[in-house]
Parts: sequence; structure tokens; C-alpha cells
Amino acid sequence: MIRKVLIANRGEIAVRVIRACRELGIKTVAIYSEADRESMHVKLADQAVCIGPPEASKSYLDIPRIMSAVEVSGADAVHPGYGFLAENPRFAEIVQASGKVFIGPNAETLALIGDKIRAKEVAKKLNIPLVPGSDGPVDFKSALEVVKQIGYPVVIKAAGGGGGRGIRIVRDERELREKLPLAMQEAKIAFGDERVYIEKYLINPKHIEVQILADTHGNVMALGERECSIQRRHQKLIEEAPSPSIDDKQRKMLEEMCVEFCKHIGYVGAGTVEFLMDQDGNFYFMEVNGRIQVEHPVTEMITGTDIVKWQIKVAMGEKLSLSKVERRGYAVEFRINAEDPNTFMPSPGKITNLYLPGGPGVRVDTHVYCGYTIPPYYDSLIAKLIVWGSDRKSAIERAKRALEEFVIEGQGLKTNIEFHKRVISTREFREGKHHIRLVEEMLI
Amino acid sequence: MIRKVLIANRGEIAVRVIRACRELGIKTVAIYSEADRESMHVKLADQAVCIGPPEASKSYLDIPRIMSAVEVSGADAVHPGYGFLAENPRFAEIVQASGKVFIGPNAETLALIGDKIRAKEVAKKLNIPLVPGSDGPVDFKSALEVVKQIGYPVVIKAAGGGGGRGIRIVRDERELREKLPLAMQEAKIAFGDERVYIEKYLINPKHIEVQILADTHGNVMALGERECSIQRRHQKLIEEAPSPSIDDKQRKMLEEMCVEFCKHIGYVGAGTVEFLMDQDGNFYFMEVNGRIQVEHPVTEMITGTDIVKWQIKVAMGEKLSLSKVERRGYAVEFRINAEDPNTFMPSPGKITNLYLPGGPGVRVDTHVYCGYTIPPYYDSLIAKLIVWGSDRKSAIERAKRALEEFVIEGQGLKTNIEFHKRVISTREFREGKHHIRLVEEMLI
Repeated sequence: MIRKVLIANRGEIAVRVIRACRELGIKTVAIYSEADRESMHVKLADQAVCIGPPEASKSYLDIPRIMSAVEVSGADAVHPGYGFLAENPRFAEIVQASGKVFIGPNAETLALIGDKIRAKEVAKKLNIPLVPGSDGPVDFKSALEVVKQIGYPVVIKAAGGGGGRGIRIVRDERELREKLPLAMQEAKIAFGDERVYIEKYLINPKHIEVQILADTHGNVMALGERECSIQRRHQKLIEEAPSPSIDDKQRKMLEEMCVEFCKHIGYVGAGTVEFLMDQDGNFYFMEVNGRIQVEHPVTEMITGTDIVKWQIKVAMGEKLSLSKVERRGYAVEFRINAEDPNTFMPSPGKITNLYLPGGPGVRVDTHVYCGYTIPPYYDSLIAKLIVWGSDRKSAIERAKRALEEFVIEGQGLKTNIEFHKRVISTREFREGKHHIRLVEEMLI
Repeated sequence: MIRKVLIANRGEIAVRVIRACRELGIKTVAIYSEADRESMHVKLADQAVCIGPPEASKSYLDIPRIMSAVEVSGADAVHPGYGFLAENPRFAEIVQASGKVFIGPNAETLALIGDKIRAKEVAKKLNIPLVPGSDGPVDFKSALEVVKQIGYPVVIKAAGGGGGRGIRIVRDERELREKLPLAMQEAKIAFGDERVYIEKYLINPKHIEVQILADTHGNVMALGERECSIQRRHQKLIEEAPSPSIDDKQRKMLEEMCVEFCKHIGYVGAGTVEFLMDQDGNFYFMEVNGRIQVEHPVTEMITGTDIVKWQIKVAMGEKLSLSKVERRGYAVEFRINAEDPNTFMPSPGKITNLYLPGGPGVRVDTHVYCGYTIPPYYDSLIAKLIVWGSDRKSAIERAKRALEEFVIEGQGLKTNIEFHKRVISTREFREGKHHIRLVEEMLI
């Protein structure tokens, strides 16, 4: 049994986890940096512990400080949220070694799926299609040989990377010679691992991912796919479920592949298997994310499941009791970022006027409120707007209405709300023909 | 086609109708009294027309002023919301006579169902069970005869009344002699109709009602029941769907009776048929409400339909295209009133601190925002909190969490949020054994 959960995170996801715990009758402990004293996650938790200065390296990424908070507060479990230490195998290991429950996959699983090359080896073994590319890490010579087979353009990716960071596109041999050492150097700095691999660069693919839940009894189930093709610099901006480009047959095939993958590696917890889909409808395995995703609410809205509650329940050893997942309607999520809509630079500041949209089919997940000051130290995500409609058209109409209602104002504060309105008014998005490079094209 | 709707109402229901219109691509016109200048319904509408001073009799109940606003704004339809003129046959008639669409049943239907005695005559003809009582209006002599058959206690009700107003309980002949003339006098003042009737007083019944949608093509469908047994002075406080006390067989029977009733009278639009259910599971027809109900969102949440959009669509002559209504989970609505939790007296004032609950399965419908001043002139309803859960237990757990999150503060401002927490913690409510007199019992 879990009686008290420490949430090793901040912002909206900390609020999300606190809500799940409260509904399960579990006490919560918030941690916060000095910059987050006024965040709603601190106010909503049963207890709150300040763990250090604003810089994440000295607070939300500082394992000893967080473990002290675990000890001091008497929490018997840790929920890592997303980002920060969520997929850090060492953190999972330390939490478990201290006799606490880590709400997520175990350290071995995190180490395996965190190594993109090892994860792809597993996929390959299970005949899950991969983007054509190198079988493992490359140097310039082996990269050239791979390119001879698959042709330009290719992308260089860091083996230890993720979240779209450290990706470079290469269109000819000159660029390969120039960018490969840079990519390796950057990967070493960013991820402590200089290994990089190369892959064929797909033309305007879609990002499709499958939500997985797995318990400690060997049950693995898929909760359908999400499409997250609206991205900016490899960061997702708009996500939806189901994908308008997937039929029941493709969904079944994808789900079966993902369940097989997770069963093979003994996966436990919530997870997401990411794919690219090319213009001919072929799927390519990308990676597995061993955490709750920012975009999990779209799956919750169409399936009626509470994924965060299930994370906690399977961590307590409960069996998955969802016999069959039935989908209803469409859901779309918009990441509301405090950023300049032109430069995408973060735009912190005090919120002096706030109106969150409401009414039918509208969900808002946020840690901000009127009077709150957005600190400059962290991710610019300040709210998630999720809308549901009985079909995709109604969901988009509702999204338009909700985005028009949304008011976040403050001295110098800027958000991407107007940008979202532009995206959903494009023909490509309305027709479901958007792809991961639509935003770049819009900005040209 | 409807291109512009004037909403002849205020507060949260005006916001609700504006949202439905926006999603349908229809322009909106708000009307407002001088006391409602700052209400969110005024800000959200495409146009807004001030129609008079704060007193409802000179604004929201003043038909000539409202019709002027219709003319001035160029609206081609009127949505009456609930309360005020929503069920006034003369208003419906005037709107239609001016060549505009009245979004609701026609004047004849409103006149029929507004007369509780005529409505019961229809029910009786269709073999829909009624609470034993007088067949029509009574005087003291005929009342005595009826009581001889059905026994005390009985209730006296106004034929032209509704919403629980003008109801008196009578336990013996002395009380009958005393209260009957008073009731008739009050009915005349309140409803312009002194006719009253009497009914057997049921012991701790439940309030069960069925949501109906009917189009102009003769299609009538039922969207399942709601239970609204948590009431205070005959005013609903908490509503839920489905009822924890109804099984599929009972639901089917109720739905069939209601569809038959509506077909028989040629009903068009959204409507609600209200029943009492006694402790043995017998149903008794009460009345039909020819308007959108405050509690419609619980039905929307479990069925995935948008009832207000359907009101507008059937008013445009569209056919009901909901082939089959599938229910999912449980939903509970809490009416958040600005009132003293002990005396239930309205508690107007300025909101200086507001946090609306959010996250999974939570919907808030409101016209208030931080900085808004609740005027003292109208109904004390300031927000509706609606929560959904995969089963009743999860819905109640979520309700508890959401009520705990809810913050509405201001100088002297009081709400019934704490009261709701008390109700949902009672054994009766948790076990679904609550009835329409639970609140009275709690307050003793």
C-alpha cells in the first residue's frame, strides 16, 4: 500500500499527480524550488518541502536533496512526473534502494529504453519496422556506408537523447563531414554519451504514438494512439486522439506490436511507444518513453480512463482491470506556453488577468492562477487545454471557441494562444493532413 | 437557418448558450441589466445590449424591452435559457409572431405543460402513474373528500406553480382548513392563478427526471434519467446521472412513458419529465419542464451529447441524428451558490480570490471570474461544478477533490461549498440512499 506520495516535479504535472492521489485517498508531498513557492502544486499538496534554489540542477534535478525530502516527509512513494528525473535510471534505483516505491518502470527498463540504440535492437528482433539507418552508433566512415544504401537526406541523432534534442539533418556528404563531429560533441555535453546514429530523413511524416499500461502480473494493454504531428523544433504543440489518419486495422496492428514489445522487456507502468508514419502509411518505431506524457489527457478523454491513477495502482501491485478500452469521440490538446509567438522565446511574468475556458468538453490542467508570477527558470508550459467533441470537426470547433475564451494577461506576458488558433485554421490541420513539419512551413 | 441568437437570460446559462452558438458558428447577442455590465456573458457575446435597470421585472422579465433588443441587434432567434421568461407562452408567441425563431417548445406546448393540472390529465390518459390526489383544482370541501380516500399527510400545490414554489404540507384537517385559503391567495399573487390541487405526501421519495429531445419531424428520444434528490426548500442542490437507484428495466420503462407523452402532445425541443419515486420503487409523474434544465450537464457528460446545441439544431428543423445514446460512467453536479451556508440567504460581493477546479473529469460552468462582483438582485447560483467518474464511487472521490480545490473568496462572500462536502460525506449519499428530505434532516 502507498499512503503518501512525494511528487518529484513542479507545475501542471505536479498538480495532475496530486489530483490523482487525492482521489485515491493518498496523501501528497510537494517539493519546490525557491522560485516555485507560490505555485499551485505547493498549495494543493498536503505537505510541501523547499528543496533549493531556482536552478533545476540544484533543486528538481538534485537527487540527494529530493531524497532528503522523501525521508523528512515520510513519503513511501515517489512520482517523478515528466522531464527532470523522470527517466533517470539512477534516480529510480536510489528511490527503490531506500525502500520506497518508484512510480514508474524500474531502473533496468529505464536504462534499456533510454538507450535508443538498444531499444531499436529489441524492436528489430521483434520485427517491428525501423526507419532505415545505421544498426548502431556510427563514425564518419560507417555513416558514409549507411548513406550509400539509404540515400540522403539523413538525420543524426544522439543515442542517449530524447525529446527531440540533438537532432541534425544532413543533405550531402559535405554536411555529414561537418555535422557529425559537432553532433557527437553536443551529445557528450548534453547527455554524457557521445554515441550518435543516423536514419533516413522521412518526407513530411506524422508522429503517432501508442499509450501503454502494464501491471506487475504480466498484463499489458494498449489504450490506442495519439497523433502529435504539430511540433515546433521537435517539441509537440498540439496532440490529438485518435489520429485522423489511422484506421481500425492499423490501430490494431500498432497496438499489438507495442504490447509485444512491452511484454518482451517486462515493462511495468504507463509508457508510450512512438512511431513515425510516412506518406504511404508505413510505420517506423522511434522510441519508448517510460513516463507519463504531457499529452496523456487526450487518451483519458476518449477512453474514460485515468492514466495517472493507473500508474499509482500498478505501482501498488494492483491488476489492470480494464477489460476492454472503448473509445468515444475525439480529443485535442493545446500546450499553452508563456512565450513570444514570433521568436518562441520564454515570456515569464505576473498574471494579472486570467480566464480559463470552461463548459462542455473542456478540460484545463494548470498550476497557474490570477496573481501568479511565471518564473523564468523552467519550461514555458503554463497550461494544457484539452477539448473533446463527438467527432473531430466538433472537437476543432470547440477548440476554436475555447481558445477564443482563454485570457492570460500580464505586464509583458505573451502566450502562444493566437498561434494555436492559426494552426487549427489551416486547411492541412482541418483535413487531418498535417505532418511534423507543418509548423515550420507556416513560419516561412 | 439561424445566424444570430439573442440570449434572453444572464449568468452561467447565458454563457452556456453562447458557447454552443460559437461552436456552431452562430453569432450571439447578450442582453444585460445595469447590474450585469461586468458579467462574463456580456464579454463573451459578439454583441451586448443593455435592457434596463437591475430589477428583473424591468429587464430580464420585460418582454417589450427584450423584443426591442432583438430588433436592434438583428437577431433571428431567441434562446430563453431557464427561469425568467423561459416557459412563458406569451413570450414564445411574441417571438414567433415577430418572425423570429423561439428556441424551445411552441406557445401551445408551454401553455399545456405549464398548467400542471392539464399536464396530469394527459399523463392519466396515457396510463402514466400519478401521485394519488385530486383530479383537478380543489376547494376545502372537495379537498376533504379526496383526503378521505388517500389519507394524510397531503401537499397543496399551485396549478400554475413550479420549481417547488407554493408547496404546503398538511397533516390534519385543522391544517387543511388553515392552509388551503392561504395557499390559494399566495398562488394568485405568485402565478396569477389561484387554482390549487392536493396530492398524497410521499415518505422520503427520490426525485427522478428524464431528459428528452424532440425534433420537428416527429422523432422523440430519451437521454436517460437524472436523480436530483438533494434539495433544499424544493430547490435542487446536487444532481447526478444515472440514478444509483434505477436499473435498466426501470430506465427503459420510464423512457418509454416519457417518449409517449411527448409524442402525444407534439413536443419539440429539449424537455424534462419529472417523477417522484417512492421507497418501493414506484414512479409518479410530476410535471414536464419545457426548457433547458440547470442540471443538463450531467446528462451531457455521461452521454457525450451537447443538449444546448441540439436545442438550436432542432429549432432550425434539423433531424435528430443520435441513433442510440450510449451511457458511460457517472456524473454529479453541484450548484455553487453565493449564500450563507447556515441561513441560505444570498451573499453577494466582490470575488477577490478565485480558483476553479480543473483536471480530469471536471467541468465548471460559470459567468464569474476574479474581480467580478456578484450582484444582489438575482438567483444565488454562481457556478456549476460537474464531475465525471468511471463509476459512482470514483465520481464522488473526484467531487470531493474538486470541492476541496475550489476557492471563491471575497469580502463577506460566502458559498455553499462546505455544505456540499458535508452532503457527499453522509452515509445516505455515498450509498445512494438519499431522498428529497435528506438536507432537511441534516439541518435538524
